[in-house]
Amino acid sequence: MSEVHHVVATTYYRTFSKSYPVLAHIAPGDTVVTKTLDSGGQDLNGDHLSEPGNPLTGPFYIEGAEPGDSISVHLAKVRLNRDWGYTSYRLGLVALTPESIETVYSSRLEMDLVRPNRDDMLPWDIDPEKKTVRARNPQTEAHNLEFDAAPMLGCIGVVPAGDFTPTSGPSGPWGGNIDYNQIREGSTVHLPVFQAGALLYVGDGHALQGDGEPLGSGIETSMDVEFSVSLHRGRELSGPRVETDSHIISVGSQPEFSSSLNRGLQMATTDMVNWLVANYDLEEWAAHQLIGMVGIYDVVTVAGSMALRIPKANLP
Amino acid sequence: MSEVHHVVATTYYRTFSKSYPVLAHIAPGDTVVTKTLDSGGQDLNGDHLSEPGNPLTGPFYIEGAEPGDSISVHLAKVRLNRDWGYTSYRLGLVALTPESIETVYSSRLEMDLVRPNRDDMLPWDIDPEKKTVRARNPQTEAHNLEFDAAPMLGCIGVVPAGDFTPTSGPSGPWGGNIDYNQIREGSTVHLPVFQAGALLYVGDGHALQGDGEPLGSGIETSMDVEFSVSLHRGRELSGPRVETDSHIISVGSQPEFSSSLNRGLQMATTDMVNWLVANYDLEEWAAHQLIGMVGIYDVVTVAGSMALRIPKANLP
Repeated sequence: MSEVHHVVATTYYRTFSKSYPVLAHIAPGDTVVTKTLDSGGQDLNGDHLSEPGNPLTGPFYIEGAEPGDSISVHLAKVRLNRDWGYTSYRLGLVALTPESIETVYSSRLEMDLVRPNRDDMLPWDIDPEKKTVRARNPQTEAHNLEFDAAPMLGCIGVVPAGDFTPTSGPSGPWGGNIDYNQIREGSTVHLPVFQAGALLYVGDGHALQGDGEPLGSGIETSMDVEFSVSLHRGRELSGPRVETDSHIISVGSQPEFSSSLNRGLQMATTDMVNWLVANYDLEEWAAHQLIGMVGIYDVVTVAGSMALRIPKANLP
Repeated sequence: MSEVHHVVATTYYRTFSKSYPVLAHIAPGDTVVTKTLDSGGQDLNGDHLSEPGNPLTGPFYIEGAEPGDSISVHLAKVRLNRDWGYTSYRLGLVALTPESIETVYSSRLEMDLVRPNRDDMLPWDIDPEKKTVRARNPQTEAHNLEFDAAPMLGCIGVVPAGDFTPTSGPSGPWGGNIDYNQIREGSTVHLPVFQAGALLYVGDGHALQGDGEPLGSGIETSMDVEFSVSLHRGRELSGPRVETDSHIISVGSQPEFSSSLNRGLQMATTDMVNWLVANYDLEEWAAHQLIGMVGIYDVVTVAGSMALRIPKANLP
């Protein structure tokens, strides 16, 4: 029988490490109901439960998962649970031409406005009922900057191979701080397994985030998260894949703000060819044509990762 | 009074050159009804009217256009006019990881199948009435490779400044072989003017093409095209912009298959900030937040250009 685990962490970690005590052991098919802090370490009540820097909820030990397997994490719920969040006040400069940066506005908004000793953050009001977000301190009447929310999880990943212990800043084949706005309620994230039990962590919820996270943040906030995990024996993956109701998606997952989009696109395209050939019985040439006709590329992060989506309606 | 010019070219050109005889002089507000050859030089009847290599219909001289102005080309019609097209048989290798290329399938399908002395092309059937496309020679029963058509124009551009005479292969600030699947019926393309009369050329229709043209081709075919041009005095643009019913779009237009997507993304983002500040009265910080919340990046070509779209519903 599958179980439901209600798990609230009291200690949060900022690395995808195999050294931390397991938060919960779960069997494939079990459901986990948990919460994530915002990227600055605050929970739904605003209490500081961790230092800033994408604190993670986990690790979850998946019974039976072994290196060479893969897990599929189905995000049944990714829900807003408080009425505020924050973004960076300025686009990441990596998203702008060098020639334009000389005259860009200052990122210094107001000291301590969102967090002590930080002056580069803009507070947002969140209405979890209406599922809307609105910039709290607009200095203009030109626009209300109010949008529909689209909650997502920035961090989802497992512990990589060997003793490599990445922080929750970059991403890679293990997932990590993928920061992809398609990883949201209803999505399923497929991840390779490198360690016994996989050691899954989640965190870094965003109420809304444009393609590529060009601000270097979404609207950072705490989240209620519910997920289940399935285990696939011997299904080796080269990196994260995502499924939504409408698309299958290969992610070329690379460190944020320091990678080549060209390389990320190559990784996503190559993985999609392999996926279509292995799982949909397409000849390689037919996979190429399908990608060439109906493939949709997403910028996952502006100088980091790319994704390639294929509509399920166009699959065999 | 605005005029309607029915123009059928008998000679086609493969450079954005100021040296060719003007095909038609048109006044702002006039409508042009014309045709384009496929990228291989064949018209709606299959007659070879040009050597291959994106032959262009033009140049159109826009009365009154001067360097420093811009023109807006509204594509009232981009219509399929024959029952066949062709693609490359294989993804462009630039879209795949180097590690995967060693074992990729041969691009050699069958000599002379589509064009004399070419063996790397796959023919497609087009149904212009139903607006569908279907691979003609599938070697598999795994998938029918039939899709809805989404006709677009690969080439649209003006003559660049000075004596620079690019071929219809690359793209740049002047437009050119942009190969962007959002340039389709109903779209408006804004282009800078570098020469008296602008000297507009169009060509290279695709019946369907995925994001980024990863095959290095769409389904190449001839087209019926109808457009009108408006002139904007003194509106200097740094490169192409596109408007659809639903989005405004900045294009970071660079040579295809030889450029940095990171740089293309920077160009598109920077242009969009400038556009939002200049035309929508947004403070620069508000433009940054709008991009960071609802911006959508498109890969225009897989190792070339990027675009940034903002939904019109989210504009002030």
